[in-house]
Amino acid sequence: MTHSRKLIVLLESVKKLIRRKDFKHVANILRKIHSADIAYVLHSLMDTERTRLVDMLCDMDLELAAESVSEMGVVKGVQTLSTLSLVKRVKVLQEMDSDDAAELLGAMPEEDSRQILDLMSSEESSSVRDLLKYEEETAGRIMNTDFLALREDQTVGEAIQVIQAREDTAVFFYIYVVDPQDRLVGVMSLKHFLLHAPGLPLKKIMRTNVISVNTETDQEEVARQVAKYNLLAIPVVDGANRIVGVVTVDDIIDVIKAEATEDIFYLAGVDADDHTYSPAFSSIRKRIPWLGIYLGIGLVTAWVVSAFQGTIGAYVILAFFFPVVGGMAGNAGNQVMTVTVRGLAIGELASESIRKYIWKELRVGLFNGVTMGALAGLVSGFLGYFWEQNYYIGLVMAIAIFVNITLAAIWGTVIPLLLKWSKIDPALSSPIFVSTLNDIIGFSTFLGLATILFGLFGL
Amino acid sequence: MTHSRKLIVLLESVKKLIRRKDFKHVANILRKIHSADIAYVLHSLMDTERTRLVDMLCDMDLELAAESVSEMGVVKGVQTLSTLSLVKRVKVLQEMDSDDAAELLGAMPEEDSRQILDLMSSEESSSVRDLLKYEEETAGRIMNTDFLALREDQTVGEAIQVIQAREDTAVFFYIYVVDPQDRLVGVMSLKHFLLHAPGLPLKKIMRTNVISVNTETDQEEVARQVAKYNLLAIPVVDGANRIVGVVTVDDIIDVIKAEATEDIFYLAGVDADDHTYSPAFSSIRKRIPWLGIYLGIGLVTAWVVSAFQGTIGAYVILAFFFPVVGGMAGNAGNQVMTVTVRGLAIGELASESIRKYIWKELRVGLFNGVTMGALAGLVSGFLGYFWEQNYYIGLVMAIAIFVNITLAAIWGTVIPLLLKWSKIDPALSSPIFVSTLNDIIGFSTFLGLATILFGLFGL
Repeated sequence: MTHSRKLIVLLESVKKLIRRKDFKHVANILRKIHSADIAYVLHSLMDTERTRLVDMLCDMDLELAAESVSEMGVVKGVQTLSTLSLVKRVKVLQEMDSDDAAELLGAMPEEDSRQILDLMSSEESSSVRDLLKYEEETAGRIMNTDFLALREDQTVGEAIQVIQAREDTAVFFYIYVVDPQDRLVGVMSLKHFLLHAPGLPLKKIMRTNVISVNTETDQEEVARQVAKYNLLAIPVVDGANRIVGVVTVDDIIDVIKAEATEDIFYLAGVDADDHTYSPAFSSIRKRIPWLGIYLGIGLVTAWVVSAFQGTIGAYVILAFFFPVVGGMAGNAGNQVMTVTVRGLAIGELASESIRKYIWKELRVGLFNGVTMGALAGLVSGFLGYFWEQNYYIGLVMAIAIFVNITLAAIWGTVIPLLLKWSKIDPALSSPIFVSTLNDIIGFSTFLGLATILFGLFGL
Repeated sequence: MTHSRKLIVLLESVKKLIRRKDFKHVANILRKIHSADIAYVLHSLMDTERTRLVDMLCDMDLELAAESVSEMGVVKGVQTLSTLSLVKRVKVLQEMDSDDAAELLGAMPEEDSRQILDLMSSEESSSVRDLLKYEEETAGRIMNTDFLALREDQTVGEAIQVIQAREDTAVFFYIYVVDPQDRLVGVMSLKHFLLHAPGLPLKKIMRTNVISVNTETDQEEVARQVAKYNLLAIPVVDGANRIVGVVTVDDIIDVIKAEATEDIFYLAGVDADDHTYSPAFSSIRKRIPWLGIYLGIGLVTAWVVSAFQGTIGAYVILAFFFPVVGGMAGNAGNQVMTVTVRGLAIGELASESIRKYIWKELRVGLFNGVTMGALAGLVSGFLGYFWEQNYYIGLVMAIAIFVNITLAAIWGTVIPLLLKWSKIDPALSSPIFVSTLNDIIGFSTFLGLATILFGLFGL
């Protein structure tokens, strides 16, 4: 039986037990499975059932309850916590890794989080408060402060004793080495470690070329470093190069997924935290502004089109082709913009290659403009003749589509780059500029050309 | 000096040395830095310089050359290899991890890869050939066959000896435990390992609930498992539950990035492997079919619009609002479709929550439809009166926008779900269906309503 099949069977029996109100039996089953699977089960329950079950889990196994709530993700995690009594909420958050607790507390209404922090043990609350001091989406905010740092004069044997004594340290992948001023000077993997004699000092066997990030480094940059150097964890240092935390690869995976979702959503005019499970009202509030922006762009374009009232009135056939004009400029612009935005996001587009890239996209735009222009012109000419014995529409379409695709290639590359240089998120803002240009320039080219050419040929 | 600043300085000095044709000095500098940084330097050079440098690196340090080429990614890696002599190509690929070699060989023209495989040492070529037998984008294809599996009756002390003897095993994160039939029965982390007495057999200390995938498991599913359970590596088993390889978290990060890029690109009508550094011809070939599809959709819509020739001829003002109609239906559909597609991709949308989600999106669509319909109606009515003393256009717009946004909510959720159930990639195919419906239904609703209402009011 595959793992996912097992999970479905498990979920079924949990649901059956819940229908019989046998919550105790359920909690016993949950104790035997991975906290990620508990989170999956919790996700699939109704709100009242979930509340009841988490409440029971808190009484039976606080550590497991804390892990499971962490695994649920921020939105669902905060939601679930809010259904618990204040005392239990404090207990659960206190039991969590400080980075997970900080993430959840940071997403709560401020008075709630302040109240909880005041009730937490001072040791735990101060480490969470420290994390919350850093800006959101920085290394400082997402780092784990539970790491293993040893002094450079300690030996391999002493280090093993330290490791064995620190059973609680959740997971660690590397041993970091510091000098007497606590500055990060070396690193080694656990495996590297096993290969050396117990008497050797760490100084002799550590790697000194340590890749680290600062507390203020953006989480996207942290993810890039971890991915680039295939790391399992990256140390976070303060201004004086003292190690203050580590970001582990499992958190990096979450960052990479969240950043990709953010880009996908922004490019489609959706807010980054608009989830399938967000409440309807929250999705409404997040989508209306975007729809408003696009309505605005549409109305401005309508205004532009209205300037050609005379031409359209004389040649109604032009209106038939509006969907083609709007669509082709939009799609060509979208293609280039998306390749540029994603190239910037995954670091493909370094400053050395930008000129080469713009030049390439211009050639692609010219070629695609000629090809699609010719194709659109031929079909439109045929349709124009068929509908109104007007095959000149084919010429207008051919030139307009050529111009629009070529121009789209230019602003699809240049706008995201300009935004990036201005420190504005290219994924967030490019679509608005690109759409506006596509629409306004697209329709003015088409209708302007028609006015000139039809006037010229005296049609 | 930050790490990225150091890299830029390094790149500058490399470029200076290359201008002086001092390739030997350059190769010496490269030997001191991480292979990922070498790949970065190689990316930034001109083709002839890169060829020269890689060629030199092969002579100086074959292992480093192999690592650096692996780090360049498939497209650039294959390109770079093709500039080397056949003998060097064989040497470099032979030196690589088998999964990296398989990835590059799988992307080469078949006759090239066959020729190289025939020249590789039989041990190395057979392990690469084994990987190439699995389908692309499956666990079998991306796994590393170099892993650590011990027998359950071996002791901790014996295991440490095995580890120390296997200095070559690149990295390993977990020790896998097998029974006498080589079936996977347990797992433990290196750290867990350090906490136990040397005399204990692995059977006593291993975790028996091992999460594994099959050789045929899709890489996206492999990534989901690793992310869900916060693993550093996941074992890959054959039909008889024998361990045949592991997929490590660094490869999972590449998979997650590639799958996100694929979705972003498909949603924008771009091919998955259309990179910023792809040659112009390759980008042209990949984008033309998409533009062709959208031209087709546009022309079909033009045909639909032409059916309303009489109405448009009588009320030219309708044409002014075409950009608004096309844009609003398109954007609303795009929003919902994107949330659905991404929800499916990151596993937010499990089968239990689908009905709830559709119902939610329908409510969001209705609310946004009413709001935006009212807004669009008001502004359009005002514009209509200003342009042609026709404020009825406001009523037509209000109803049309309301209908279009509500309908977009339905097919933006239902189409990706139907495609997923039909085992068709929702990211790839949804935009085509959604665009077609948006355009055709959008314009027919608007023009149909206008025909009816203007007829009714006898305007």
